[in-house]
Amino acid sequence: MSQYIGIDIGGTNIKIATVAADGRVLARGLIETRPGEGAASAFRHIHAAARHLASSRGVDAVGIGCAGLIDATRGVLRSSPNLRAWQGAPLAQLARRHFSVPVMVQNDATSAAFGESFARGTRGRNLVFITLGTGVGGGIVVDGRVARGASGFGGEVGHMVVDPDGPRCRCGRRGCLEAYAGAYGIVRTARSLLARTTRATPLRRSGLSAWKVFEAARHGDPVAGEVARITGERLGLAIAVLLNTLNPSAVVIGGGVSGGFDALEPHVRRAIRRHAFPETVAAARIERSRLGNDAAVVGAAMLARAAAGPRRRGAR
Amino acid sequence: MSQYIGIDIGGTNIKIATVAADGRVLARGLIETRPGEGAASAFRHIHAAARHLASSRGVDAVGIGCAGLIDATRGVLRSSPNLRAWQGAPLAQLARRHFSVPVMVQNDATSAAFGESFARGTRGRNLVFITLGTGVGGGIVVDGRVARGASGFGGEVGHMVVDPDGPRCRCGRRGCLEAYAGAYGIVRTARSLLARTTRATPLRRSGLSAWKVFEAARHGDPVAGEVARITGERLGLAIAVLLNTLNPSAVVIGGGVSGGFDALEPHVRRAIRRHAFPETVAAARIERSRLGNDAAVVGAAMLARAAAGPRRRGAR
Repeated sequence: MSQYIGIDIGGTNIKIATVAADGRVLARGLIETRPGEGAASAFRHIHAAARHLASSRGVDAVGIGCAGLIDATRGVLRSSPNLRAWQGAPLAQLARRHFSVPVMVQNDATSAAFGESFARGTRGRNLVFITLGTGVGGGIVVDGRVARGASGFGGEVGHMVVDPDGPRCRCGRRGCLEAYAGAYGIVRTARSLLARTTRATPLRRSGLSAWKVFEAARHGDPVAGEVARITGERLGLAIAVLLNTLNPSAVVIGGGVSGGFDALEPHVRRAIRRHAFPETVAAARIERSRLGNDAAVVGAAMLARAAAGPRRRGAR
Repeated sequence: MSQYIGIDIGGTNIKIATVAADGRVLARGLIETRPGEGAASAFRHIHAAARHLASSRGVDAVGIGCAGLIDATRGVLRSSPNLRAWQGAPLAQLARRHFSVPVMVQNDATSAAFGESFARGTRGRNLVFITLGTGVGGGIVVDGRVARGASGFGGEVGHMVVDPDGPRCRCGRRGCLEAYAGAYGIVRTARSLLARTTRATPLRRSGLSAWKVFEAARHGDPVAGEVARITGERLGLAIAVLLNTLNPSAVVIGGGVSGGFDALEPHVRRAIRRHAFPETVAAARIERSRLGNDAAVVGAAMLARAAAGPRRRGAR
């Protein structure tokens, strides 16, 4: 049986999984990232962890999804806000030292997009993946292939401008989707509404967070409901633009904050119907991630499989 | 020498060209569309015109770019505002009756996008094509392949919403790019500014048109300059969104109104710099169409070549 290793490198931890050719996760491992120790050291730990997971029959290819801007052709991490010490790290080369099989490196959100695409078969061939977390990331799949564009920035749906005069985004521009739908944007919207009302609301209790907003909105709090409306409408507008330009058959919402998507969903769907063609709306399912935390490891493993060719076989 | 036929079907006329394997146009023909006579009759005229153009050595494949929504798999025109009488016409089947070679059917703007992509080689592999005319259309090329999405609507950049509360678009929604940058949108913006100023301007002379606006803006008329600013900023915002989501290496402006792009260009470029990542701005050339009126015939012919395979050879 063919077997692939998927590795998902984030600023906090590294997920490792063995994945079958049909995308099933066979085994999972997790190690701490320790960015200060350098990428070469990390790959020694990754290899040790992978040896525990992979069967003695060896693996066919290794796929790496890494946070940051990736040079996929050379397998190099060009830059990453969460892995500054790894800038320029030759990830593919480091991996090949330990795994003597083909290695593929891609951005983590792009890998996750491909994982969700793979999990949906034909319906996943044209897919937009949006990760809601502190920031908003994503990936685009066109005709079954990931779209990374001319220099690896493709799929940055979090930085679609949805209001040219909107609030400041972490990227320095104004009115990006992230400035509304990233966790920090949701908290900021809540703060600005709280400053303008004297209404009693659970949001005034200490420790405002996106989660707290979603929870209060679910319980009918009108201030939180208004935050959900503003957030959901902007997310819906961005999705409508993606529907009319790319006509995907699935828009998949994932990421750490996506557990609160149900609170946004009615507003998202209303905005989509308002701003997109009925035909592109009808073609696309808007749905939650199927793979959850496995999306990037599965996607990286399946990208490596596609790149290596299904029949190619190496020894570990 | 391999030779392909490209056919560009619009509501007014049909362009026919023979195209070499390297994209050079060898010969051109033009016939009137006469939509009332039906598609079967049109293909008799097309075949007669093509026989004048093609050498006796025959052609390798026929590509058709047609205005409207195309079912590319079956080669059928599903619907077209400018060719209502042809709804459901089996264009590929009709073409095959006359040309006994592989036939490929695609949307006209998608074909033009592929033509501009082909003409740019590597730099054209990730490309966005925007046609400025009465309406605004376009096409998207990702990794050298046209992106038509799940149901053939991909590339409809004219209906990206750039202002959710903006003016009404012909499509029924509000604030689409077309409502600003289509010829009718430009005229409407001019009218609304004229209603709010008593200033003397050449725009008050009879027969307001997008061309007149561009011409007056070039000559320094401040009212026309303000129309160009509003139009250019919205077009720049839409391009910025496309840069950050697709990271193309070229954004190509074509279409009947694109001759006025120079009047919009400073505003377009300023808006792009304001709203897009410096990296995606640096990766992309924003430029005028290279193929002009030939874009769709060249693109359709080269799409047919790609679909048929470069070595496949048939007799006419």
